[in-house]
Amino acid sequence: MDIIKSVVERNDKRILMIVADGLGGAPNETGKTELETARKPNLDQLAAESSLGMTAPIGPGITPGSGPAHLALFGYDPIAHEVGRGVLEALGIGFEITDKDLCVRANFCTLDRKSGRVADRRAGRIPTAENQELVARIGRQVKRIEDVEVIVRSGREHRFVLVFRGEGLSDRLTESDPQKDGREPTPIQPLATGAEKSSRVVNRFLEQAAKVLEPEPAANYFLLRGFSLAPKIVPLQERYGLNPACIAAYPMYRGLAQLVGMRILAAGDTWESEIAALEQHAAEHDFIFLHFKELDKMGEDGNFAGKVQYLEKLDALVPRIRRLGFDVLVVTGDHSTPAILKGHSWHPNPLLLWSPYVRTEGVTEFTEWACARGALGRMPATEVMPLVLANALKLKKFGA
Amino acid sequence: MDIIKSVVERNDKRILMIVADGLGGAPNETGKTELETARKPNLDQLAAESSLGMTAPIGPGITPGSGPAHLALFGYDPIAHEVGRGVLEALGIGFEITDKDLCVRANFCTLDRKSGRVADRRAGRIPTAENQELVARIGRQVKRIEDVEVIVRSGREHRFVLVFRGEGLSDRLTESDPQKDGREPTPIQPLATGAEKSSRVVNRFLEQAAKVLEPEPAANYFLLRGFSLAPKIVPLQERYGLNPACIAAYPMYRGLAQLVGMRILAAGDTWESEIAALEQHAAEHDFIFLHFKELDKMGEDGNFAGKVQYLEKLDALVPRIRRLGFDVLVVTGDHSTPAILKGHSWHPNPLLLWSPYVRTEGVTEFTEWACARGALGRMPATEVMPLVLANALKLKKFGA
Repeated sequence: MDIIKSVVERNDKRILMIVADGLGGAPNETGKTELETARKPNLDQLAAESSLGMTAPIGPGITPGSGPAHLALFGYDPIAHEVGRGVLEALGIGFEITDKDLCVRANFCTLDRKSGRVADRRAGRIPTAENQELVARIGRQVKRIEDVEVIVRSGREHRFVLVFRGEGLSDRLTESDPQKDGREPTPIQPLATGAEKSSRVVNRFLEQAAKVLEPEPAANYFLLRGFSLAPKIVPLQERYGLNPACIAAYPMYRGLAQLVGMRILAAGDTWESEIAALEQHAAEHDFIFLHFKELDKMGEDGNFAGKVQYLEKLDALVPRIRRLGFDVLVVTGDHSTPAILKGHSWHPNPLLLWSPYVRTEGVTEFTEWACARGALGRMPATEVMPLVLANALKLKKFGA
Repeated sequence: MDIIKSVVERNDKRILMIVADGLGGAPNETGKTELETARKPNLDQLAAESSLGMTAPIGPGITPGSGPAHLALFGYDPIAHEVGRGVLEALGIGFEITDKDLCVRANFCTLDRKSGRVADRRAGRIPTAENQELVARIGRQVKRIEDVEVIVRSGREHRFVLVFRGEGLSDRLTESDPQKDGREPTPIQPLATGAEKSSRVVNRFLEQAAKVLEPEPAANYFLLRGFSLAPKIVPLQERYGLNPACIAAYPMYRGLAQLVGMRILAAGDTWESEIAALEQHAAEHDFIFLHFKELDKMGEDGNFAGKVQYLEKLDALVPRIRRLGFDVLVVTGDHSTPAILKGHSWHPNPLLLWSPYVRTEGVTEFTEWACARGALGRMPATEVMPLVLANALKLKKFGA
């Protein structure tokens, strides 16, 4: 990909990348996918003026999490730039990660005092309000271990996020979560030389926080897993010469965008507020990532009809979006979420690329079927960004 | 591909991979391929419920042998895991290779006593019975050289297999076959350091066996080529967490299956006995490789009509196969064998993948044409296994 950097040049062409989370599907008992079922005249018309293709986020048969799926779409090798569970959890609650932050996911649990074993890995799924109270108490009483700042942030129910901020931290640590009730939590141990300080700091934090929680009937301890540092990423500005921004109602996607250097625009928490933000800021950036979440949620819930409805809602927004005069439009998914699978899947993602320069298809529908036969072919998701930049005339000729 | 190993998880879903050897073809003077000519309502119906694609065993334009073609389908890089001629020959006569075995193909030949030159590289294609008698005689009289056991096994006519079993053997040896009559056999020489012992052992064996054959009028010597060790292969159990089995009427395919760790099921030597074995063992394994040979033989013979007949015979078996309730079905070839070429070819292989989760095609035929436009696209044959595992829900999500 260094070849891309060598031919990038800035211009004032504006790119909009719409990621409809979990866009692709699979046929239900009717024999049709969600996209094939939805009535979507605007997307079909756009498809008729576009080039279509299919993207694979990671590789054949691999079902991606949201982190790697988005990094691939932004042009980063998703295996080389792994986004760990702790980092993703921190991004998911809107925490702004720095390059000095060791993140880890924490679960309140119930420890049997006599045996020292985990009686309930989720502390009876304590209410979020109780979580917030306990997290605040820990935060007040344990602020620093050695020269490392400790930041504690509540999630939902029994979940929270720990961030250790300091110099020379490593994520090569064992986890304390024994994975099953009835076992003792395991102390954190270094998995590599250079991880000793991190291990020591985390264990000392565990001791001190345990004292804070000792009086609690349910949430008297917590388990740690997914130690991770933010992946080292060359931001989009530097990599592609872009001035990029993100419009996303959900914190995790804003967090992923922030990792690659995007400006985060205030977008509210509905599709309507996202579109309003887009209309407001469309002229200010040469690359905008616009994220729509709900299709994925419907897929995860196994709600085929609900996903169809959101596809039709997306379709209804297309005329407003087209009116904003972007030079390049992309409509795609980060991964597929077929309602029949109730989760992310390995299926490749429909890709629609519109610009004044695309070779059109002769098809008049935006479906998995049409995209599978599309002129863009099948490609790794990491190839989308170069194609998009080319269609925005942001890549010079290579070689003489 | 290590990423696959990191996401594999076992479940009770059952996969059937049907390899119709030499499945793909090319048009004859009618303008139609063998698949386009055959009447095959059951395969066409299965195609209508499946995703289709095309696989390339090795690379563009490369015609594969059976060894690399099958290894690719089983998910192994066929170039990194080369199956040498000696190994393939040993597998072809049903010999069970171990990781201490140096295999080589041997041909009885006639040596002119006065000149020491090869008078006939095939010893007049002596009858197989004579071959068996001579091989038994060598086997009785030369059993061991230094600490290396020597195993001799008859093939057909003038061909036999030699296996040197011991520690520290190398296949980096020159061959003794001068390739043309009228030349002297060349002594075996090491091609790398570490191959000296192998070279010495083979040359001493040649001396001793030559004495045994001295009285023979025709087969008074033999030539060696294709020294090879079994490729180092991580078995399917370990690689994909499978409990795999093989049903194949021909020894070579059983041998290839054994190399990758499959249990070899007794399958008789007809399609009918293979299907009977499948019906008997379908529930015992989560992966069954079912091999049908005769299409390839018809192709090799240039027998277009014969290949069409076997395609129709395959079609007739489909309902019995579907009744066995596999969760994932694959129908493909290892390589193409167009009758008009009378041999293996470089053409990619039709691939049919059925599971409850595939995106269907809207096509109702299983032909090269339909597969070339299939939703799975064109892929290296090594990508079939990850796709198949995904469709059996045997791969967890990658990344958070």
